[in-house]
Amino acid sequence: MTEIVKTQVCIIGAGPAGLLLSQLLANAGIDTVVLDRRDRAYIEGRIRAGVLERGTVAALEDAGVADRLHREGLPHDGFDLAFDGERHRIDLKALTGKSVMVYGQTEVTRDLFDRRFAEAQRFFFNVDNVTPDDLTSDAPRVHFRHEGRDVTVECDYVAGCDGFHGVSRKAIPDAVLRTYERVYPFGWLGIMVDRPPVSHELIYANHARGFALASMRSKTRSRYYVQCDLTDRVEDWSDDRFWEELSVRLGVETAARLETGPSFEKSIAPLRSFVAEPMRHGALFLAGDAAHIVPPAGAKGLNLAVADVRLLARALTAHYRDGNDSHLDTYSEAALRRVWKVERFSWQLSTLMHQFPENSPFEKRMQRAEFDYLAGSEAASRSIAENYVGLPLE
Amino acid sequence: MTEIVKTQVCIIGAGPAGLLLSQLLANAGIDTVVLDRRDRAYIEGRIRAGVLERGTVAALEDAGVADRLHREGLPHDGFDLAFDGERHRIDLKALTGKSVMVYGQTEVTRDLFDRRFAEAQRFFFNVDNVTPDDLTSDAPRVHFRHEGRDVTVECDYVAGCDGFHGVSRKAIPDAVLRTYERVYPFGWLGIMVDRPPVSHELIYANHARGFALASMRSKTRSRYYVQCDLTDRVEDWSDDRFWEELSVRLGVETAARLETGPSFEKSIAPLRSFVAEPMRHGALFLAGDAAHIVPPAGAKGLNLAVADVRLLARALTAHYRDGNDSHLDTYSEAALRRVWKVERFSWQLSTLMHQFPENSPFEKRMQRAEFDYLAGSEAASRSIAENYVGLPLE
Repeated sequence: MTEIVKTQVCIIGAGPAGLLLSQLLANAGIDTVVLDRRDRAYIEGRIRAGVLERGTVAALEDAGVADRLHREGLPHDGFDLAFDGERHRIDLKALTGKSVMVYGQTEVTRDLFDRRFAEAQRFFFNVDNVTPDDLTSDAPRVHFRHEGRDVTVECDYVAGCDGFHGVSRKAIPDAVLRTYERVYPFGWLGIMVDRPPVSHELIYANHARGFALASMRSKTRSRYYVQCDLTDRVEDWSDDRFWEELSVRLGVETAARLETGPSFEKSIAPLRSFVAEPMRHGALFLAGDAAHIVPPAGAKGLNLAVADVRLLARALTAHYRDGNDSHLDTYSEAALRRVWKVERFSWQLSTLMHQFPENSPFEKRMQRAEFDYLAGSEAASRSIAENYVGLPLE
Repeated sequence: MTEIVKTQVCIIGAGPAGLLLSQLLANAGIDTVVLDRRDRAYIEGRIRAGVLERGTVAALEDAGVADRLHREGLPHDGFDLAFDGERHRIDLKALTGKSVMVYGQTEVTRDLFDRRFAEAQRFFFNVDNVTPDDLTSDAPRVHFRHEGRDVTVECDYVAGCDGFHGVSRKAIPDAVLRTYERVYPFGWLGIMVDRPPVSHELIYANHARGFALASMRSKTRSRYYVQCDLTDRVEDWSDDRFWEELSVRLGVETAARLETGPSFEKSIAPLRSFVAEPMRHGALFLAGDAAHIVPPAGAKGLNLAVADVRLLARALTAHYRDGNDSHLDTYSEAALRRVWKVERFSWQLSTLMHQFPENSPFEKRMQRAEFDYLAGSEAASRSIAENYVGLPLE
């Protein structure tokens, strides 16, 4: 026996994209069902980026889930780029009039879960065999297995918010889907430590031994990264080795202020640029990592997902409230315009700040020249800054 | 019998760099001898770029050779970048307050020759076996063969202004010289035609079939280029084929205004980025193409050479007039700081505007995204503009 569930929008994926979409639609009186292969505890435990653009903060405010963010988040008016120990501050506030907010993705997810649970959102956790079906008919459905039963959600629309490895994108036929990809020849080794950050602002450093990033989650919790080989395993990196390498790459002066301690999280992530087109297929709309991945420099992943969700929530609201489908019809095109711009920025910042084994001596000098030019040019610094705080939503 | 010639500065190469250096030094009362493998007619006949930065115009004014330039040159307040037919104007004047001047390198060279001849400059043309010698001693010399005689110039300093293929750079020992190079996987096929230009400003176009440039030398003489294969020969390109290809790449709307005609010059040039370090070895100072090459997009070759020459003339003047060698001692470092920035810009503009056979689909989309971002961002447009009009001389 298959259990039938009816809703207006079936949201696949209970990460921040799916949760925020559910919240924005709920606020507009639109009913959703949210399903995920994992449970709440697992999803909240995933550690991701932690820098929110002004537009992302605005979206969370609109959704009504920004109270704790404003209490606990750290507004940042700038950040540093460093090259072989030479530092250049990008003064976001002076260059753009805007700031960013340091607040972990994990916290955003928790705030959204709290609110969705308080409003009795229908969730299905720990589902299996999720299968979007009949997407190009007027009766789209999503089948899955849940607690030993077969469930079918009958809905008007399906939102694919289930990330890069999710099933949603795979539901788009090969003949329709175009993908673009760049896999970078290194990874990021990240650690979390309960020590005050070495600097009150982020430092992105390019050193001859590789990239390093000094970041934080709060005034007492730091997040540090170093570029590592793709073949490295977490076991290869003792805390001691990590601190030593980080110190070298940040430079003597900065390292002198570094407070080290035992890491309580340590992981290696690959770096990828990825875009799938289109972001709509029939009743299915992709949002966030399901459609695109950016390398982590610049912290655009969550911000880009939120931008998708804002467009999608607006389009679905126009459909249900005004009977206006024009935003649904242009969703993929409008979202992708922004996606490519953000992909460009993340790729550019990554290209500038890492050591690429394949770079020729000329290309290495071009990287250095790019930094020197940037450090001396207000126009170039403003270009970086306007991307970092977030391009305007169209 | 060797003929001995004495001077303060022996200048190898009578192109615009060598001639301008000779003029600036003459104005400061410093004696030079100029030699070249070719003669004046040959040198004046070489067709090169034709866009002068404000600083280049200022240098020619300082040298006293800018009268005709101001009479005949065409001030340009902007130029167009085009991508698959979509156009974005870089408004140089609005973005930087500055303009550039369209005036052929050939004309600059003629003005300089006129002035040097009028002032009875000592030239040796059609020389052979040019050999800088004893560069690290206190009695540097340059030997060569001239009209069947051996000549030795005894001098304080040697200026290597003899271009990429010249002997000057080769006089720096391998153990000292570092070189950086990027050879691009295509060439530029250029034609000159006595027809009014298709647009009163330059158009740099990136089309799926390759780059094209609509440029000019005057209101009645146009200079057009198309990206071609490295294996192409001039004979492969009839005028008809050229006009057809140019029309496609510039787009229907622009092509409708194109006035075609018989070309009176047609040539293929390879594209190269090249830098040699250091630019000084003992008594030898390199300037212009002898030390560095840029790809032609952005027209930086002559401008960069002039910037070198301004620094070098200033340094030699400080030496002879004030006994101050500090500018000579820092010449290489100061010149190279600018060189790398200009190399960066020429490389960036070339990378943006050409079709690279090796580009992945992702990289092709990054190129398009770069154009789209640029077209919508004042900061990014200003960054292009400030480089195009010329970065300030340090």
